[in-house]
Amino acid sequence: MEFSLSARCQELQTQLTEFMDEHVYPAESVYEQQLAASGDPHSHPPVLEDLKAEARRRGLWNLFLPHKTEWTDGLSNVDYAPLAEIMGRSSIAPEACNCNAPDTGNMEILTMFGTPEQQEQWLHPLLEGEIRSAFAMTEPAVASSDATNITSSIQRDGDDYVINGRKWFISGALHPHCRLLIVMGKTDFDAPPHRQQSMVLVPMDTPGVTILRNMHVFGYDDAEGHVDMTFEDVRVPASNLLGEEGGGFTMAQARLGPGRIHHCMRTIGAAERALELMCQRAHTRSPFGKPLAEQGVVQTWVADARMNIDQARFYTFYTAWLMDTAGNQAARNEISGIKVIVPNMALEVIDNAMQTHGAMGVSQDTPLARTYAWLRALRFADGPDEVHRMAIARRELRRWAPDQRSGGSAP
Amino acid sequence: MEFSLSARCQELQTQLTEFMDEHVYPAESVYEQQLAASGDPHSHPPVLEDLKAEARRRGLWNLFLPHKTEWTDGLSNVDYAPLAEIMGRSSIAPEACNCNAPDTGNMEILTMFGTPEQQEQWLHPLLEGEIRSAFAMTEPAVASSDATNITSSIQRDGDDYVINGRKWFISGALHPHCRLLIVMGKTDFDAPPHRQQSMVLVPMDTPGVTILRNMHVFGYDDAEGHVDMTFEDVRVPASNLLGEEGGGFTMAQARLGPGRIHHCMRTIGAAERALELMCQRAHTRSPFGKPLAEQGVVQTWVADARMNIDQARFYTFYTAWLMDTAGNQAARNEISGIKVIVPNMALEVIDNAMQTHGAMGVSQDTPLARTYAWLRALRFADGPDEVHRMAIARRELRRWAPDQRSGGSAP
Amino acid sequence: MEFSLSARCQELQTQLTEFMDEHVYPAESVYEQQLAASGDPHSHPPVLEDLKAEARRRGLWNLFLPHKTEWTDGLSNVDYAPLAEIMGRSSIAPEACNCNAPDTGNMEILTMFGTPEQQEQWLHPLLEGEIRSAFAMTEPAVASSDATNITSSIQRDGDDYVINGRKWFISGALHPHCRLLIVMGKTDFDAPPHRQQSMVLVPMDTPGVTILRNMHVFGYDDAEGHVDMTFEDVRVPASNLLGEEGGGFTMAQARLGPGRIHHCMRTIGAAERALELMCQRAHTRSPFGKPLAEQGVVQTWVADARMNIDQARFYTFYTAWLMDTAGNQAARNEISGIKVIVPNMALEVIDNAMQTHGAMGVSQDTPLARTYAWLRALRFADGPDEVHRMAIARRELRRWAPDQRSGGSAP
Amino acid sequence: MEFSLSARCQELQTQLTEFMDEHVYPAESVYEQQLAASGDPHSHPPVLEDLKAEARRRGLWNLFLPHKTEWTDGLSNVDYAPLAEIMGRSSIAPEACNCNAPDTGNMEILTMFGTPEQQEQWLHPLLEGEIRSAFAMTEPAVASSDATNITSSIQRDGDDYVINGRKWFISGALHPHCRLLIVMGKTDFDAPPHRQQSMVLVPMDTPGVTILRNMHVFGYDDAEGHVDMTFEDVRVPASNLLGEEGGGFTMAQARLGPGRIHHCMRTIGAAERALELMCQRAHTRSPFGKPLAEQGVVQTWVADARMNIDQARFYTFYTAWLMDTAGNQAARNEISGIKVIVPNMALEVIDNAMQTHGAMGVSQDTPLARTYAWLRALRFADGPDEVHRMAIARRELRRWAPDQRSGGSAP
Repeated sequence: MEFSLSARCQELQTQLTEFMDEHVYPAESVYEQQLAASGDPHSHPPVLEDLKAEARRRGLWNLFLPHKTEWTDGLSNVDYAPLAEIMGRSSIAPEACNCNAPDTGNMEILTMFGTPEQQEQWLHPLLEGEIRSAFAMTEPAVASSDATNITSSIQRDGDDYVINGRKWFISGALHPHCRLLIVMGKTDFDAPPHRQQSMVLVPMDTPGVTILRNMHVFGYDDAEGHVDMTFEDVRVPASNLLGEEGGGFTMAQARLGPGRIHHCMRTIGAAERALELMCQRAHTRSPFGKPLAEQGVVQTWVADARMNIDQARFYTFYTAWLMDTAGNQAARNEISGIKVIVPNMALEVIDNAMQTHGAMGVSQDTPLARTYAWLRALRFADGPDEVHRMAIARRELRRWAPDQRSGGSAP
Repeated sequence: MEFSLSARCQELQTQLTEFMDEHVYPAESVYEQQLAASGDPHSHPPVLEDLKAEARRRGLWNLFLPHKTEWTDGLSNVDYAPLAEIMGRSSIAPEACNCNAPDTGNMEILTMFGTPEQQEQWLHPLLEGEIRSAFAMTEPAVASSDATNITSSIQRDGDDYVINGRKWFISGALHPHCRLLIVMGKTDFDAPPHRQQSMVLVPMDTPGVTILRNMHVFGYDDAEGHVDMTFEDVRVPASNLLGEEGGGFTMAQARLGPGRIHHCMRTIGAAERALELMCQRAHTRSPFGKPLAEQGVVQTWVADARMNIDQARFYTFYTAWLMDTAGNQAARNEISGIKVIVPNMALEVIDNAMQTHGAMGVSQDTPLARTYAWLRALRFADGPDEVHRMAIARRELRRWAPDQRSGGSAP
Repeated sequence: MEFSLSARCQELQTQLTEFMDEHVYPAESVYEQQLAASGDPHSHPPVLEDLKAEARRRGLWNLFLPHKTEWTDGLSNVDYAPLAEIMGRSSIAPEACNCNAPDTGNMEILTMFGTPEQQEQWLHPLLEGEIRSAFAMTEPAVASSDATNITSSIQRDGDDYVINGRKWFISGALHPHCRLLIVMGKTDFDAPPHRQQSMVLVPMDTPGVTILRNMHVFGYDDAEGHVDMTFEDVRVPASNLLGEEGGGFTMAQARLGPGRIHHCMRTIGAAERALELMCQRAHTRSPFGKPLAEQGVVQTWVADARMNIDQARFYTFYTAWLMDTAGNQAARNEISGIKVIVPNMALEVIDNAMQTHGAMGVSQDTPLARTYAWLRALRFADGPDEVHRMAIARRELRRWAPDQRSGGSAP
Repeated sequence: MEFSLSARCQELQTQLTEFMDEHVYPAESVYEQQLAASGDPHSHPPVLEDLKAEARRRGLWNLFLPHKTEWTDGLSNVDYAPLAEIMGRSSIAPEACNCNAPDTGNMEILTMFGTPEQQEQWLHPLLEGEIRSAFAMTEPAVASSDATNITSSIQRDGDDYVINGRKWFISGALHPHCRLLIVMGKTDFDAPPHRQQSMVLVPMDTPGVTILRNMHVFGYDDAEGHVDMTFEDVRVPASNLLGEEGGGFTMAQARLGPGRIHHCMRTIGAAERALELMCQRAHTRSPFGKPLAEQGVVQTWVADARMNIDQARFYTFYTAWLMDTAGNQAARNEISGIKVIVPNMALEVIDNAMQTHGAMGVSQDTPLARTYAWLRALRFADGPDEVHRMAIARRELRRWAPDQRSGGSAP
C-alpha cells in the first residue's frame, strides 16, 4: 500500500493550485459582476473565456479524460482525483479547465462509442472548449432513477431518426455555447428492458427542439440551465446514432460511473473550501466575548469536517484506483458507496459552515448556500441515495445468503 | 391535564381551514403568476389584497394578538397556536390574515409600549392591513445574536433623534406597502450593557434611509425583501422614541418571545404540509415496480415525520399555555427549546419530502425548497440554535450546582 | 388546553417524592449489598420488603391500575404518568410500589378478563404484593414481533389443558416470589390467524415447567430473570383458561397498550435521572482546567436532554389523556409513537451521561450502564421500533391515498 | 497511489484466515464453556494455551511489533493492519496470537526504552507469551484524559522507589498470568507539567499492591479484569525505572499512538463480523412474511455498514502508512481521527446488528452485546472522543488563523 501521489500528479497539483490562486479565485467576483451586468441570467461572462485560454496555456486542460485519443494523452483516475478536488473548490474552475459536467461524460462516450466522423464533428470542438453539450435523459413523467422507465421515442424513418418526448432537468442546455444534445430514448419498445434504449446526437438548433422553461434549484436560476424541454418530430440523419441501436442503456451506464466519481472528487474540494471558510469565520467572530474558534461546538464541527472529509477522500481514491486497475464495472459497488457518502458528508460540512456565518451564510455573500443547493440535488442526480444503498445492500447480503456461505471466513 | 381545544379555537379552526381550502391554496399559483408577470420580483400581487378582504370578512384577522385593544379582542397563545399552524401551511396565508412577521412583533410592541398618538398613527393602519413595517436590528459588522453588540447610534439633537448605522437582513423593507421602520440603536454607549439601546419609529421615506441591495436566501430574492441598508443622519422627532430611552433591550426581548413561538407554530404547519406532499408523492411513484409508499425507507420517513411533528406540537402547545398562564418571561426556557426543536424537525421532514420528489423537490414546482431555505435561515434568525442551547444548558446545570443542591430529591 | 396536574396527582407526586428521598434512594446501595452478600444473583433482598411495607403504609400502592376493583380505587393514566415517571428514576421503586412489570400487565388482564375465582386466587395476592408473576409469550424459534407466529400449543384434553412449547426472555420468572405464569399459546392452529391464540394460568410449580437458563442483557444476569424455559406436557384444569378460547391475541393487545405507556413513563424518569447525574458530574470534573459544565459540547448534551425529555413527556401525557378519554384502541398510533420516541431519546441522554462520567459511567458505580442495557432491550421488547414505525406510516399514508383525498385540508 | 497489499501481508492474511476458520472460531464456545465450568470468572481457559501453541507453530505470533529485536523481525503498521482486523473478529484471537492489549503497548515501550536487563527479564517472556502484564495509569480521583493530572507518587528512597496511589480500570491485572505492572506516577511534583511523570516496573507480587475489586463494563465481569487497586508503600529497586526520570509522559505518548491504531484495526474486524451476523440473521427471519434481507430498513443498515466500514478502513490504512513513512508523531492528527471515527462507526453497525437479532442480540447467544460494551468503553479509553476532536480542531483552526493565512490555496 502506498498513499503518495505520482510525480505527474504532484506537478499538476502545484500548477493547478497556482492557477486557482492567481486566476480563478480572483475571477469569481468578476464572473458574478459580469453575469449581473449582462441583464441575462443565462449569459456567458467573458472572464470565463480568459480563464479557459490561461488554463489551456498552462496545460491544465481536459485532465478528466482517462483515454488516449488523437487529441489527448489521458490521465488515470487516481491521478485526476486530487486535481478534480482542487477544481471543485470553485464553481467556475471546471469549465475553465474544460472538465465540466455534462460535457465530460459526453466527451467520454463520444470517445468510446463515436464514429470518426462523429468525433471530428463533435468530440474535437468539445475537447477544444469551443462548444458545449447536454445529455437529455431524465423525464418528468417517470421515475428516472430506473432508466428502463424512459418513454421518449426514437423512431427510424427512412434514413432518419424521428424523436418525440419530454425531458427535464437537462443541464447545460441554456449555455450560449451549447450546440449538441445527446438524447436517450427508445428505438424498440418491445425489446428486452435493457435493449430498448438508444442514443442519438441532436444538434441544438434542430427544428422541433423547444426549451419550455428553466428548472430552478432552490432559488437558483443557474446560468447553464436545467431545462424543461420538448422534442416534437425532431428529425436527424440515421448516421447520428451513437453506437448501436439498443445500446443506450449500456452506454448510459458507461457514462455514469466516471460521472459519479468526478462529482465526488469535486465535492471533496467543495467541502474543503467550506471548512476553510468555517475556520476563517470562526477566528473573526466573538459573540459573548470569545472567538467561535475557541468554542467547543464549533470545534466539534471543524473536527468532524476534517475527519469525514479525510475518510471520504481515501474511499474515493480507492475507488479511482479500482477503476484504473480492475475496470469501472468492478468498481460499481464503491462508486455507489462514494456517491452516497461524499455528498452527504459535504452537505453536513457546508451546513455547519453556514451556521458559523449566520445570515450571511445563506446569502449571496459566500458560495456556501449555492454549493449546498447543488449538492442537495446531487443526492438524487445520477441515482438517489436510496437506490445506491439498495444496490450495495443486495450485493452484501448475497455474500451471506444461506447457500453462499462457504465457511467461517470473511474479508 | 386536558388536551382538547377550546370551543372558540375549534370554531376558528374550522373557518380557517375552509378559507384555506376555498381561497388560499387556489391563490398560491395565481400569486406566483402575478409576481412573474409584473416583471418586478418585489411587486405586490393583487390577489393578496383579495385574500385579505376575504379573511377580514370572515373574521380571520389579527388572530395573533393576545392583547385586548381599542381595535382587537385578543386571543390566547394556546388558542392561536392551532390557527397559526394552519396559516403556516401556505407562505401567503399569514399576510392574508394580517398575522405575518415582522409586523406581528411590531404591532405587539406598539400595543405594549406605544403612546396613543403612535398607536393611532402606526398601530391602527397596521392592524387594518393598510401598511406594513420592518424591524431594523441586525447589523453586518457584529454578532447580532448578542444584542448588546449593536453599533448603530441614535443621538438626541434638540427635539430630534439622529440615526446613523448599517443594518442588514431587514425583512419586509421591500414590500411596496412598507411605511415604518422600528430601528434599534444605542442612545447611550456608556450606560450599562442592557440599558444602552433604544428604539425609534422611522418613516420609510425619511431622508437618509437608503436600501443598498436585497440579501438572497438560497438563491431566493424574496418579494418582501431582507435588505442591506444604511441610515445616514436620519432625523426624526423626539416623539418618535418608542418607550423610554435605554428600554430597547427589554422591548426587543418582549418582542422576541412571541415572535419565536409564532415562527414555531407556523413551522409545524409547514412540516405537516411537507408530510402531506411526501405521502401523496409516495403513492404515485413506483420506481422498480413498487410504490414508494410501500417501501420501508419511505415509511420510516413518514413515521418519523408523524412522531416528531406531534411531539414538537405538544411541546409548543405547552409553551403557549405557559406564556398564557405564567407569562412570557417564565416560559423563556421553553421558548428557547421549541425554537431549536421545531425548525430542525421541520427541516428533516422537508428534506425527506424533497428526496421523495427527486429533482422536482428542489425546483419551483413544489413549495418544499423555498420552505426549506426559509427554515434553514430560521436556525439562526431570532437567535442561533447554539445560543438557545447554551441558555437552556446553563439553567439546567444551575439546578445541580454543588451549592444549589438542597438535598430534596435524588440520586 | 390545560397542562396543570390534578390536585390528587400533585398530592401523590409530593408524597411519592418524599418516599423516594427518604426511603428508596438510600435503599439502592443496601439492595446491591444484600444481593451480593446472598451469594445468589437471583435472591430477593429483604430491604425490598421494607420498602413495600412503607409504600403501602403511605398509600403509594397499585397506582398503575386505571380500573376500580374490589381492592383498588383506580387512577387515570394521565394522573399516573407523572407518578410512574418518578418511580422510573430508581430500578427498585416500581416493585416497592407494586407497579412493576410484568405484574402490572398481568394484574390488568386478570382485572379485565379473569373470573371471580381467578381474581381471588391470583389477582388479589398480586395486588397485595404477596406473589409475583410472569407473562410467557416470546419464543426463540419465531419472530415474536408478530404474535401470530407463536408455535406453543395449548390443547384441550378432557377437563384439562396441556401445554407444550419453548419460551424465552420470560421476565420475572426467577423472582423467588413468582407463583404464576400467564402462558400464551395456540388452542386452534386452524382458526383465522388472530383467533388461534389463548391464554392459560399456569402455577409456577406445575410439573413440566422447566427453566433452562437465564438470558443475560449486556452481561447483566438480572435478579428477576429473563428465562429460557420449556413447557412439556404441562397440565392445568380447564378453568385456568383466561377469557375465552381464541381470545389470546385480543387480550395480548389489551395488555400491550398500557404496558408500553408504563415503560415510556418510567423511561422519562430514567432519562431525568441520567440528566441529573450528567449535570452533577459536569460540575465536579475539570480536565484541562475548566469544569465540564462550562464546555460547549457538554452543554449541548444537557440542552438536548432537557428539550428532548420535555417534548417526549408531553407526547406521552397526550397519549395518556387520549387513552383516558377515547380508549386504548383510539390511542394506538400515539402508543406506537411514544414507544419509539421515548426509549431512543433516553438512550441518547444516558449515552451522553456515560461519556461525561468516563470509565465510571459504564461500571457498577452508577446506574447508567444498567439502565442503558435495559432500555436498549426495550427498543425491541413489546414490538421493535421498525414495526411501530411501519404501523404509523401505513396509517398516515392511508390518509393521503389517491382515493382518500377529499380536498386540500389537513390537520 | 497503490492499494494492493504486499506479498508478505497477503500470505499472512491467508494463513491467519485459515487459523481463524480451523481453530479460533471453533474455540470460542469452548472458551465460554471452560470459563463457566471453572466457577471462577477470572480463570484462564486451557483452550487458549492450545490456540497460542498453534498460532506460534504457524508463525502467527507477535505480528504487532514494528521493531526488529533480538526475538522479532518486525512488521510494518500497514502490513499489520489487515491482520489485526482479522484478529479483531474474535475476542480470543488477539491473545492467541500474542497481539493483545495492554501487553502489546507494554512490549513496545520495553523494546524502545527498556535496558537489556529489563528486556531479558520482562520483554522476553512477554514475547514468548509466558507472562502477561498491565499498565497502571488511570486514577479514580482525577480526569485522566489529561495525563498531567495523575496524583500517584513514585519517590526515590535510597536505592529504591516507593510507590503510593490508587489506580482503577487497570486492564489485565486479573489475568492469572499477569506478572508485571508498568506504573505511571510522579517522581517530581515541582517539575514542568510534562516532566513530572515517570514509569517503574512493579512485579505483581510486590508487597503493598492490593486489588480491591474488579470494575464491570456494563454487566460484564471481564476475565482479565479492569481492576480498582491501591499501591501502599510499594518498594522496588531503582533499576526498575523505565527510561529516565521525568520521561513518563513522553513514553505514555509513544505507547498510545500504536495502541490506538491497534484498537481501530481490530475494531474494523469486529464491525465486519457484526455485519456478517446481521446479514445471516436477515436471511433467516421473516416477520410479516418477507425475509428481513428484503426489507428496506435492514438494507439501509447493511449498506451503511458496508460504506462506513470501508471508508474507515482506508482512513486507518492511510494512518498506518503515515506512521510507517513519517513517524508516529507526524500521524498524530490521523490517529486521533480514526480513534473517534472507528469505534463510533462500529457501535452503529453492532447496534443495528443487535436490532436485527431482537432479544437474542443483547444476550449471551451472540458476541454482539459484549463487543458493543467494550467498544462503548473505547469511546473514552485512550482519550475520549471529545479530547481527540478538540486536538484535531485546534490544528485545523491554526491553519486558518488570521496571521497564518498565506494565500488562497488549500489541500
